[in-house]
Amino acid sequence: MPRYLNVALGQLGPIQRADSRTQVVARLCELMRQAHAVGAQLIVFPELALTTFFPRWYIEDEAEINSFFEQSMPNAATQPLFDLSKALGVGFYLGYAELAQEATGAVRYNTSILVDRSGQIVAKYRKVHLPGHKEHEPWRRFQHLEKRYFTAGDGWEVTQAFGGVVGMAICNDRRWAETYRVMGLQGVEMVLIGYNTPVHNAPAPEHDDLSLFHNQLSMQAGAYQNGTWVVGVAKAGVEEGVDSIGGSCIIAPSGEVVARCLTKGDEMAIARCDLDFCAIYKRTTFNFDLHRQPQAYGLITQRKGETLGADGTVWAAPSGV
Amino acid sequence: MPRYLNVALGQLGPIQRADSRTQVVARLCELMRQAHAVGAQLIVFPELALTTFFPRWYIEDEAEINSFFEQSMPNAATQPLFDLSKALGVGFYLGYAELAQEATGAVRYNTSILVDRSGQIVAKYRKVHLPGHKEHEPWRRFQHLEKRYFTAGDGWEVTQAFGGVVGMAICNDRRWAETYRVMGLQGVEMVLIGYNTPVHNAPAPEHDDLSLFHNQLSMQAGAYQNGTWVVGVAKAGVEEGVDSIGGSCIIAPSGEVVARCLTKGDEMAIARCDLDFCAIYKRTTFNFDLHRQPQAYGLITQRKGETLGADGTVWAAPSGV
Repeated sequence: MPRYLNVALGQLGPIQRADSRTQVVARLCELMRQAHAVGAQLIVFPELALTTFFPRWYIEDEAEINSFFEQSMPNAATQPLFDLSKALGVGFYLGYAELAQEATGAVRYNTSILVDRSGQIVAKYRKVHLPGHKEHEPWRRFQHLEKRYFTAGDGWEVTQAFGGVVGMAICNDRRWAETYRVMGLQGVEMVLIGYNTPVHNAPAPEHDDLSLFHNQLSMQAGAYQNGTWVVGVAKAGVEEGVDSIGGSCIIAPSGEVVARCLTKGDEMAIARCDLDFCAIYKRTTFNFDLHRQPQAYGLITQRKGETLGADGTVWAAPSGV
Repeated sequence: MPRYLNVALGQLGPIQRADSRTQVVARLCELMRQAHAVGAQLIVFPELALTTFFPRWYIEDEAEINSFFEQSMPNAATQPLFDLSKALGVGFYLGYAELAQEATGAVRYNTSILVDRSGQIVAKYRKVHLPGHKEHEPWRRFQHLEKRYFTAGDGWEVTQAFGGVVGMAICNDRRWAETYRVMGLQGVEMVLIGYNTPVHNAPAPEHDDLSLFHNQLSMQAGAYQNGTWVVGVAKAGVEEGVDSIGGSCIIAPSGEVVARCLTKGDEMAIARCDLDFCAIYKRTTFNFDLHRQPQAYGLITQRKGETLGADGTVWAAPSGV
């Protein structure tokens, strides 16, 4: 008795600074229409999918920073996407910069939402693993100031939606095994991940040519080791002079890639995912109740970083990394 | 200033039940000589490398079970390997079944040791993730009774040896991201892993054709996500009618395979591993001190298994899995 969920990749090509949200939302709507035409019930869009990837710039003016953030969701610019979602019965994952009003004041998050097939937001996630750096580092070809512009979220909670157990993560989260495991321990059956990943990594340019490999490796391992589908979606191509990887793909609980985008532009691809396929792994090799040994995992939560190098020294990041 | 360590894969073909330890040790010595001839300083042998993989049989007679275990190490049968190690200056990793005398009586472990270039044991590890089952399950083509014959070890401690930080794991440990992370948090630079992995997995035969892929995927992800070398070594081929995967390989901190065995028999392969290469990852993408978020990882140590299925049920293993 399979539980099929038809899931579409909603990969975006670049969004330049001059592009308006209205223009971008029209592109998202076009991808959603394409997905609907081939039977998709859910489409996954990238991280920060409404604007250019602004953390590449050091910006001091608070109003200018806030211009990249959404103060409410939906809002006037994104309402057409919610309306289309409801009209077509296609849910979506969308990443955006969120300006939240909290008791302590305004807080900025790198956020994703899950919208069901009736156009209603059913879950929100705030990125935990913010990469990059906090201070201006002019030696870099471009900045990666996520640690400056965003506050980290609390963690991962799964949602019962689309006939299964759905979780969300964002970009750098996908490189950390903990991300998938925390959701795996909640029975996740599909993890949705949007990303923006420059080909060039300033602190370690010697592995720029491995960016696509690392992207896929991390998601394949997360899928296999937790018996879950993983859907990774890029904002790809050359955006404001910075080239970003594509490689959007859908990965089965076996770790196998079952759908993939081929370009670095706006592109839709689809897979029919059987959520019951997860059980083949969750009930055998990765039956956590039978096989996990949490008493041996203490350091994972007790310790943040490393304490030993080859000569007994503490690993320390070089300045500016 | 590279820190090179020349590491050899000491893959074994099958060991039949009738093969004596003396015969097996002669094969290990031959592999060590081959490794020494091409400059190896360390050779890694498989899990349970002194006998056939006896957990495939349900055995009731205690004396017969114990016949597969070592009561001391080194012992008369293995002394020639230790002597050769000292004579050649080649250290080794060796997996074997250990019968330990503890205050509570005799305890059986699935164990590995690390021997330095002077032939001295410098570390011992006891397998944490024991796969398989505890009771006799005659429906299986062959048994996998590790949970019956072995007690789980406490966890992973790294050792300063061979000019770097070395860790050990055994077989099924390599599928669990926690294994690598607990050592990564101790600054590990090379993880040594012996394994015996049947091609056929009785509870989930539909992914038998993925056994080699899963083997490599797990080790590649563990290497990349912790910035460490990983050395995986099989006992391969058809042993007492059961076909096991080969796929022994050495994986760089980039996740790339740099050396590989090609057969399912006794085979040596080598790589020159720069331990300083780890830092390229440990100090950038996987700088744990900068980027890990342990406050969000609580479930990993708080919870052993899953609690939610798609319909809110608890995942439960089918009988006999």
